[in-house]
Amino acid sequence: MRLATIRTADGTRAVRLDDGGLVDLGAADLGVLLDDPDWRARAANASGTVHDAADADFAPVVPRPSKVVCVGHNYRNHIEEMGRELPAYPTLFPKFADTLIGARDDVVKPAETEALDWEVELAIVIGRDVRRADDARAESAIAGFTVMNDISVRDWQFRTIEWTQGKIWDSSTPVGPYLVTPDEVGGVRPALQVRTVVDGRVMQADDTGTLLFDPVFLVRYVSTIVRLRPGDLIATGTPAGVGHARDPKVYLTGGETVVTEVEGVGACINRIVGDA
Amino acid sequence: MRLATIRTADGTRAVRLDDGGLVDLGAADLGVLLDDPDWRARAANASGTVHDAADADFAPVVPRPSKVVCVGHNYRNHIEEMGRELPAYPTLFPKFADTLIGARDDVVKPAETEALDWEVELAIVIGRDVRRADDARAESAIAGFTVMNDISVRDWQFRTIEWTQGKIWDSSTPVGPYLVTPDEVGGVRPALQVRTVVDGRVMQADDTGTLLFDPVFLVRYVSTIVRLRPGDLIATGTPAGVGHARDPKVYLTGGETVVTEVEGVGACINRIVGDA
Repeated sequence: MRLATIRTADGTRAVRLDDGGLVDLGAADLGVLLDDPDWRARAANASGTVHDAADADFAPVVPRPSKVVCVGHNYRNHIEEMGRELPAYPTLFPKFADTLIGARDDVVKPAETEALDWEVELAIVIGRDVRRADDARAESAIAGFTVMNDISVRDWQFRTIEWTQGKIWDSSTPVGPYLVTPDEVGGVRPALQVRTVVDGRVMQADDTGTLLFDPVFLVRYVSTIVRLRPGDLIATGTPAGVGHARDPKVYLTGGETVVTEVEGVGACINRIVGDA
Repeated sequence: MRLATIRTADGTRAVRLDDGGLVDLGAADLGVLLDDPDWRARAANASGTVHDAADADFAPVVPRPSKVVCVGHNYRNHIEEMGRELPAYPTLFPKFADTLIGARDDVVKPAETEALDWEVELAIVIGRDVRRADDARAESAIAGFTVMNDISVRDWQFRTIEWTQGKIWDSSTPVGPYLVTPDEVGGVRPALQVRTVVDGRVMQADDTGTLLFDPVFLVRYVSTIVRLRPGDLIATGTPAGVGHARDPKVYLTGGETVVTEVEGVGACINRIVGDA
């Protein structure tokens, strides 16, 4: 199944992609749907109003997750380009619900930065409450996968030793368009091509099969620390090729179109606009 | 005014402390109350049911803030004990709503750590929507102050270069008991004694007047990055005297009572219990 949250004249709606149409699932958004323990059956069996998929206006795939946990240093190539050793533990940092935007929304470059950067990521969407999960429970807690462009404000990220202030900018981070269930991508540890294309130029390209910490491990690890709730997101990290690590560095200044895509999951396609 | 969220047999309630009684404010919690632009008048004028203050069961002062932003390196003495230089910018890190507990709740030591630590903090409670605030708007966005014990899981905090995983443990962080409006503590840049007492021994003692980045500055700074919403919390940092910086180090192992207090604002009083 491919599920999404779309914006309509009557507010947001949870929908299922079906032969080019978006079938209304009777919930205001995917966060609300996932909160229902029977969400899988409900999503599979719904036969409500059909919205037009061609001009769908995608909201963040889950508009108000209670937490967004991002992982740094998870692709071998990106760790090496940043000059670091392979880590024993995943590095975690946050985003907030207010940081998220839809998969086709414009990314507004804040006037306060001259170092706006991209990071394509496979993101996990949580489908049940889970704390201190074992492998089996972690697997069953993965509702599916989506795409995140972990937009990063590098000058603020590196103002201090903590990255948070470069990662939580308001309405900066596209996520979506679809939650794709694991059965459609080869399971809960999928090997999928990921890439970022900026104005037609491929900037990042790797394979989620090379992740140091796979999705099931990450759900276990994060759930050891804090409970995960339906709709929560874990972004699994980005591969080599970010603008900040290039020589010379490349940043988004406005006017670009950035495509971040994960094979079989989908793509965020976002125009960068200045807010000056 | 002194406002709180208490747990009752009928769920949580927002209340005002009044002559030893807790006057019901007609809202489920302070987050709901603060979402009403007229919250100040509503809180001042309410004359509903009076709950007994003597055996009040305090919930987190705001149970489900959309974001909790914490500040590191903000007291001169603590920066020096950690061996760091005075910073040009505040260091930010997150907590999530699921991290919070009430001001009298037990702190359950996770079985996964042997390095549980305290950090007394003056915390700001946001009272209106604000983004890119100037000084005047930042001042008016401060609903009041409360106390946070920024419980830290040091072994996990220092597993990687990002502190997040040591700071977001589930149900670890007392916050409350009261939101105290600025007029009761000398304004929006108050100079108040803060201290931590563990089993009768004073471990931290300083004055919020020595903060490098004061509350108004912090609201401006954070709101530059991300919108602040009513009920959001900013914890202003902790002074010298944390267990991790002592020689020898001192950690909470279970059985202790930790009092974190801010003069004129209140105290979190928490027993540390093991979870085996």
